[in-house]
Amino acid sequence: MRALVYHGSEQTSWDTVTDPAIEDLTDAVVRVDATTICGTDLHILHGDLPEVKPGTVLGHEAVGEVVEVGREVHSIAPGDRVIVSSISACGRCEFCRDGTYGQCRGGGGWLLGNLINGAQAEFVRVPFADYSTRRLPGAVTLEDAVLLAEVLPTAYEVGVRNGHVSPGDTVVVVGVGPVGLAAVITARIYSPRRIIAVDRSPSRLEAATRLGADAAELPGRLIADLAEGPGADVAIEAAGDPESFILCTRVVRTGGHIANIGTHGKPATLHLEALWHKNMTISTGQVDTSSTPWLLDLVTSGRLHVSQLVTHTFGLSRMEDAYEVFSHGTDTGTLKVVLRRE
Amino acid sequence: MRALVYHGSEQTSWDTVTDPAIEDLTDAVVRVDATTICGTDLHILHGDLPEVKPGTVLGHEAVGEVVEVGREVHSIAPGDRVIVSSISACGRCEFCRDGTYGQCRGGGGWLLGNLINGAQAEFVRVPFADYSTRRLPGAVTLEDAVLLAEVLPTAYEVGVRNGHVSPGDTVVVVGVGPVGLAAVITARIYSPRRIIAVDRSPSRLEAATRLGADAAELPGRLIADLAEGPGADVAIEAAGDPESFILCTRVVRTGGHIANIGTHGKPATLHLEALWHKNMTISTGQVDTSSTPWLLDLVTSGRLHVSQLVTHTFGLSRMEDAYEVFSHGTDTGTLKVVLRRE
Amino acid sequence: MRALVYHGSEQTSWDTVTDPAIEDLTDAVVRVDATTICGTDLHILHGDLPEVKPGTVLGHEAVGEVVEVGREVHSIAPGDRVIVSSISACGRCEFCRDGTYGQCRGGGGWLLGNLINGAQAEFVRVPFADYSTRRLPGAVTLEDAVLLAEVLPTAYEVGVRNGHVSPGDTVVVVGVGPVGLAAVITARIYSPRRIIAVDRSPSRLEAATRLGADAAELPGRLIADLAEGPGADVAIEAAGDPESFILCTRVVRTGGHIANIGTHGKPATLHLEALWHKNMTISTGQVDTSSTPWLLDLVTSGRLHVSQLVTHTFGLSRMEDAYEVFSHGTDTGTLKVVLRRE
Amino acid sequence: MRALVYHGSEQTSWDTVTDPAIEDLTDAVVRVDATTICGTDLHILHGDLPEVKPGTVLGHEAVGEVVEVGREVHSIAPGDRVIVSSISACGRCEFCRDGTYGQCRGGGGWLLGNLINGAQAEFVRVPFADYSTRRLPGAVTLEDAVLLAEVLPTAYEVGVRNGHVSPGDTVVVVGVGPVGLAAVITARIYSPRRIIAVDRSPSRLEAATRLGADAAELPGRLIADLAEGPGADVAIEAAGDPESFILCTRVVRTGGHIANIGTHGKPATLHLEALWHKNMTISTGQVDTSSTPWLLDLVTSGRLHVSQLVTHTFGLSRMEDAYEVFSHGTDTGTLKVVLRRE
Repeated sequence: MRALVYHGSEQTSWDTVTDPAIEDLTDAVVRVDATTICGTDLHILHGDLPEVKPGTVLGHEAVGEVVEVGREVHSIAPGDRVIVSSISACGRCEFCRDGTYGQCRGGGGWLLGNLINGAQAEFVRVPFADYSTRRLPGAVTLEDAVLLAEVLPTAYEVGVRNGHVSPGDTVVVVGVGPVGLAAVITARIYSPRRIIAVDRSPSRLEAATRLGADAAELPGRLIADLAEGPGADVAIEAAGDPESFILCTRVVRTGGHIANIGTHGKPATLHLEALWHKNMTISTGQVDTSSTPWLLDLVTSGRLHVSQLVTHTFGLSRMEDAYEVFSHGTDTGTLKVVLRRE
Repeated sequence: MRALVYHGSEQTSWDTVTDPAIEDLTDAVVRVDATTICGTDLHILHGDLPEVKPGTVLGHEAVGEVVEVGREVHSIAPGDRVIVSSISACGRCEFCRDGTYGQCRGGGGWLLGNLINGAQAEFVRVPFADYSTRRLPGAVTLEDAVLLAEVLPTAYEVGVRNGHVSPGDTVVVVGVGPVGLAAVITARIYSPRRIIAVDRSPSRLEAATRLGADAAELPGRLIADLAEGPGADVAIEAAGDPESFILCTRVVRTGGHIANIGTHGKPATLHLEALWHKNMTISTGQVDTSSTPWLLDLVTSGRLHVSQLVTHTFGLSRMEDAYEVFSHGTDTGTLKVVLRRE
Repeated sequence: MRALVYHGSEQTSWDTVTDPAIEDLTDAVVRVDATTICGTDLHILHGDLPEVKPGTVLGHEAVGEVVEVGREVHSIAPGDRVIVSSISACGRCEFCRDGTYGQCRGGGGWLLGNLINGAQAEFVRVPFADYSTRRLPGAVTLEDAVLLAEVLPTAYEVGVRNGHVSPGDTVVVVGVGPVGLAAVITARIYSPRRIIAVDRSPSRLEAATRLGADAAELPGRLIADLAEGPGADVAIEAAGDPESFILCTRVVRTGGHIANIGTHGKPATLHLEALWHKNMTISTGQVDTSSTPWLLDLVTSGRLHVSQLVTHTFGLSRMEDAYEVFSHGTDTGTLKVVLRRE
Repeated sequence: MRALVYHGSEQTSWDTVTDPAIEDLTDAVVRVDATTICGTDLHILHGDLPEVKPGTVLGHEAVGEVVEVGREVHSIAPGDRVIVSSISACGRCEFCRDGTYGQCRGGGGWLLGNLINGAQAEFVRVPFADYSTRRLPGAVTLEDAVLLAEVLPTAYEVGVRNGHVSPGDTVVVVGVGPVGLAAVITARIYSPRRIIAVDRSPSRLEAATRLGADAAELPGRLIADLAEGPGADVAIEAAGDPESFILCTRVVRTGGHIANIGTHGKPATLHLEALWHKNMTISTGQVDTSSTPWLLDLVTSGRLHVSQLVTHTFGLSRMEDAYEVFSHGTDTGTLKVVLRRE
């Protein structure tokens, strides 16, 4: 089959590789009908994640049809249309029993396109298939469905839920790339009073407004905007840099929440001298994809509109073009690019 | 009357000052039967809290008898024995309506011995008396009761409750001065499996063991102790220094809680590059003293044993001797010193 | 002034009565700009609430302008436009400190139009004015605002919040008179997947659909509709009769919630023989009106649309006509009637 | 092997039956080292549970050694010492993913000694062994361990946790047979202020006092005792009869919780006419045994003392004598009887 293979820092190519096959009794093999590229894939490309070995097929989000299942797979069968979650879960360890699949201690966690071959390919082997896939009703579009493999559950679970977004809240989202925009979209589930998107990129701020932010501001303006009132109830860090995190700690009100979604490569300064008495809560986290089923329900029932997150669609074989477009996303207004089976 | 007056950095004296009187309709004047010294008082002494003006009577924890009340005070009357909480609360602002008295926006907050004259005196004026005092049943000793004015509610609310200490947990308390020891005591309310006290002072570690810690360790040992297992469920920072905070972030398990009680003068480094995916929650906070009534219930019903926190008792007039003893507490094993009316 | 006076079972009249005046230092007198009639007023009329004495002015929901305040009132002043909540709260008792104003033990609770003269009048005396009124921003219409005095907070607090309505839920509301319809409206705050309204009145079912219910069904149909699936996540009883309550216990899924809003005059049968192992939660409650401020925020920011609940508007002097119309509401499609100062 | 076989109403005998063997790939066969008799077994005996077919081996609580496992069992291996939980869980259905094992929709739930052969036998086949057994550390006694198979998790999960027992609470337990006594024991985990046991049997009241209740009263006395104060914060129904349930609704305070543990055969009257405005929460439920691991932690660390619940120990072959003694438990002070392998 064809697949996008990582060959070391800044080197990938759309290669012919061996088809995946069942290796463990709990595996499934899925034919990829749609996949997408994540900002984390660019980090891998830049060599920031040394655990990804050259030769690995990238990609950790897909929708497709089950082709084959191992003998211990009970929830899905060949022919089923499924979401392949970015997180694989053993289902038996203490973390999985709590639904904290992202922290699986039984051999799961983030495997696809990281520790094993991933989903930017014609086929993908999915370990622990019972806990790592979700059956898909027919009515959902591929574009909507592939967003439920990671970006929407991440924004919801790590940002909106961990940040305790509540009705009537003022919510600030710092960094409105795809996951930050998904936080804007999923924050609306709880009827906040006001969502403020913050970014340095005008095209992203514009996208944020289009997707439902009530205000879109440059970092400096935000401080001024919130300085007169009590501050934000929730600040969601979706940029992954120390300055954005510090901005979150400055704009959140006494008693507010800071939910970190961003992937950080450097420490941040926590101004405890200013914050120790501020009744503030900071959370970090990795997605579990446990919210995928009911987010899917909200999408199918028309309660959640997510397809605007997709700005480009390519045929699967145009993977390298898609990477080219996606890697310039900040400037060009590109958000999620979806690759579909041809 | 006589009172301990702050005269600027490193200067206090037991002076004769004007008796306090009702100034606002919601005030009470209380005769001090017992008061105590807090680590924060030493910070004031060292000039770390410039908002405390020379001429201020120090002290923010007391038990005593109501002498006079303003016309708008309805809950207490002259002759009542009360706990004077460290926090004064207007009772009407949005924060007070939520029970977040420590963040009062209506003129309250930490006033006594900070912005107005305090309780290390023969009499103290208590603003917003309805919300700032708690009536005391006869059976409670002065020593127990004065601990309920601040140190126990602080340890409980900001450490144990905000840290979500739960049955079966492993709880680490870093810094076992009086408030850290109070965290050890109040953590036991929720039947954790194991409480580990951490400090550099052998006398404090010994006190921790005496008061119910299951283990007492130097910071370096702790790392080794927890390295093999999943880590602590809850780490409570009660030292107020950056290194202790960082230690907390190192020893807490994936999905665990860090509750900061310590008063910090400097920022700490938050290693987001290691923590961003760790499902960790960090909380900061200031006491509300909203838990005082039911902590008092647990003390009176014999469920909570707190008096071992008091190592020294003085007559009120020996205030300066008490300060001398208390300020060398780390080395000498001194914990709380109580001063009683003579 | 003129006011609607209760003269005993089935007897009311629009009489000239003495103007209200400040009686306690925490009172306010408010000029009524808008008031409304509640189903409970009809219960009073029918003699079902014997604690309401003949001679009492009815009505417990109003919006108006503060005319005079007692010396201990600090939050509002003459000239302020306020919502007069159905619940008066002392603000000092244990329940009020918890925000459970509806259970006030300090002399408050439901007083207006019940134990003291109410708001279906040109002026109303409001006890404990600091805790019983909410200042109103200029932009809100009288019709919207008067709904925030009781019907919306009741539906939200006792139905939606106590019932733990959550994103993706199936919510059943049994009985869609005004408070049931307000439950339909406020349930949407949490993005349930599906709201099913149940009533015997076709005009009310039609109103439910208009106000956002996804389905509207007769009781019998509901059973059939839910029989195939797992049942409702939340069932809200807003009819106040035993059969409706039993229906709720039949349609709720294992692990679901039943939130009772209805005012009941008779016991219901709880089929414990069928329910004991069903992981079900039943809640009862009385409104606190603590949610009024942020519901108001959602109304002013255009997130919550409530005015469709008002089907009729009258001048205040046409109170008796308004009662006539409202008392035939079930058949005629009448929901809330608002009476405005002329 | 030998096992206690149900032969229809009032008929059981200690018979020789076929040894159990692996039937499904997720099964384990366990040699029973200790088992016990549950009140529910007596209900079966009296013919109250018609789903139990004649020929079924009774018993749903055991501790033993794994003899054989199916090919899909990954968590335990032959030679492991395990607790066999009363609840078998598929681990994959929606309820199991939430940890609600008692409501398993994938073929699990309460199977042992109910729908399939049980544990009052020399060997038992355990379906879904990964999710239905818990590995046991060596230090725990058989008597302690067997209590963790059902009675302690039931009392904790369905009574104490669902009832939201909190520090400082007044807790009433109505019905202090074994499960009610286990509620007394596990309620103490949260440091309530006062636990009141209620029963008609003097020997059970005496046992309650011995096991940690602060007061032990006849039903009538309880009403008098609580009439003067605000009532109980939590009332736990552990008797399974309508009168006890009604008693719970009478003694609980405004805002309190009623947690039903009892198995009911008849409906109860819910006095909604008195309760609709009382902010009360009623919960029902079936055990999940999800708390077994950390209850075990508390037992092994000496925080929870449970062995006093065991009043009699027999050799396994004396099963019929044990039933005889247990079935007269109410009068004779018999609590749990444990049967050990000889």
